[in-house]
Amino acid sequence: MRLGQIDDDIAEIEQSKNKLLINTDLLVENIHFSEKISNAKDIGWKSITTNISDLICSGSDNIISFTVGLVLPPSTEWEWVEKLYEGMYEAMKEFGGEIIGGDCTSGEIKMISITAIGEMNQPRLHRGNALPGDYIVSTGFHGLSRLGLALLTSEKLPSENEISLELIERATKAHRRPYPALKALIALKECKPQSNSWRAAGTDSSDGLIESIRGICESSNCQAVLSKTSILKDPDWPKNLIWDDWVFNGAEDYQLILSLPKDWAEALSKTFSSAQIIGFIKEGKPNVFWDDLEEINIDQSNLFQHF
Amino acid sequence: MRLGQIDDDIAEIEQSKNKLLINTDLLVENIHFSEKISNAKDIGWKSITTNISDLICSGSDNIISFTVGLVLPPSTEWEWVEKLYEGMYEAMKEFGGEIIGGDCTSGEIKMISITAIGEMNQPRLHRGNALPGDYIVSTGFHGLSRLGLALLTSEKLPSENEISLELIERATKAHRRPYPALKALIALKECKPQSNSWRAAGTDSSDGLIESIRGICESSNCQAVLSKTSILKDPDWPKNLIWDDWVFNGAEDYQLILSLPKDWAEALSKTFSSAQIIGFIKEGKPNVFWDDLEEINIDQSNLFQHF
Repeated sequence: MRLGQIDDDIAEIEQSKNKLLINTDLLVENIHFSEKISNAKDIGWKSITTNISDLICSGSDNIISFTVGLVLPPSTEWEWVEKLYEGMYEAMKEFGGEIIGGDCTSGEIKMISITAIGEMNQPRLHRGNALPGDYIVSTGFHGLSRLGLALLTSEKLPSENEISLELIERATKAHRRPYPALKALIALKECKPQSNSWRAAGTDSSDGLIESIRGICESSNCQAVLSKTSILKDPDWPKNLIWDDWVFNGAEDYQLILSLPKDWAEALSKTFSSAQIIGFIKEGKPNVFWDDLEEINIDQSNLFQHF
Repeated sequence: MRLGQIDDDIAEIEQSKNKLLINTDLLVENIHFSEKISNAKDIGWKSITTNISDLICSGSDNIISFTVGLVLPPSTEWEWVEKLYEGMYEAMKEFGGEIIGGDCTSGEIKMISITAIGEMNQPRLHRGNALPGDYIVSTGFHGLSRLGLALLTSEKLPSENEISLELIERATKAHRRPYPALKALIALKECKPQSNSWRAAGTDSSDGLIESIRGICESSNCQAVLSKTSILKDPDWPKNLIWDDWVFNGAEDYQLILSLPKDWAEALSKTFSSAQIIGFIKEGKPNVFWDDLEEINIDQSNLFQHF
């Protein structure tokens, strides 16, 4: 906490030689989080990390500061608030940044509004930066958070396949403690071939793998062709096609989804172990296909639904 | 709107040679605003201007940008949202700044979370900058917004004094369309005697005149002595002592309350017509007195209550 935060309603932002990036995210009780499946510490972690993921997928690896707006019912116990902040501080310890201000007021439902500021660096990732010929890279597994949500809410699983205890643990952790792809972003910066410019497209997979790629296609006015077999899954993921829908359309995994020049994509997939080339970008009206040219139509009702 | 806002979840903050100031304010329906007495346009104006007032009373006269987080019940009509933004844009046209980002989600009650960013300038006003010997300056009338609230909610007035139509109009406008003290801040900068440093204490009167002065005393560890007869009131304000409580303790007037070296205070009161020296700062345990040395005790139950 710096001067101004205790006595005044205002805080100062650290100076930076680079431009700053800013992002505001809202988390509303029973829509974005539920105390039935997450405790206050997890909610604090998640409220900070969802913002951090937006900074990371814009290319910022220097997270500077946060303001926290809290709406809490008067019945909220002080311990809940303490635990919420503990979770926030854990996330900041892991990824950087500090809380420099905020506001708190009463309301009928809990609501957390966080504004995050990070330093703008190279590459400045945009959804709209993809070009035909690019390779599409995912920096990790998908579907884990969706499985975690199902397990935590006792939702019926896609099939009766047995799932390992390790997978259960990884899935529930992925849902309760989403882990933004800061390490992948740093690897991306470090492995850029000298001959390449900093041009790269990126987003996070918070709305699901296919949706994030569709977003890149729409913003960049191009098509994506995906190789179903190249998409990596957790080693314990059930070998049953019906489970793949959660890999492709499960949300809140917060992996980086990148569209990169071939050399750079290959360098990243070599140096960052969970990064994988999963397709390529080509000219055409925005759309996403499998590599057998089947159009990927998502039943919108299957898309991630909040609580 | 600049690049990044349409396609990405992130926005860029303009570069500034000075440090930046940041402030987050929450407005919750039925606590900070009520559609019974304000329309969507007024609520939009108010949501932006309350943030601007915090920047102004920290010394920033260059309002740069806003992010807007909106929680809206699914039943909200699109027209309401349009009007809300119209009110926001009217405020930005008057005071500066632009909306560069935000988030929107559904929720059971309406909630507006705004983060405002301004450039830090001289003087950097803090509540904790007052020194014994300073004069206390208020930059305008107090009590109008409180009267406006009473009129709009058909609350019983303090007495049966008749009030003029002009006062009714000014009071309801003060409540619906609070007007931050940007002009007073600019005047303060321009009238600083060359022999003075930039040291000055300031806050806004959003919590009421006496409470704002108490805040300065507590942060600066000093006492304030106020001259009851020096506090300016609207020319049509009822000449009845019972009405003075709203002048002293009514909230949401958003005047600047300053603690300044004598020369500077006198210069401001000469050059800015509604600015008035209303007391002075002296050593002692934080407290506020009238100039007959009567301690000012506020019945907390009389303090501004939100809806």
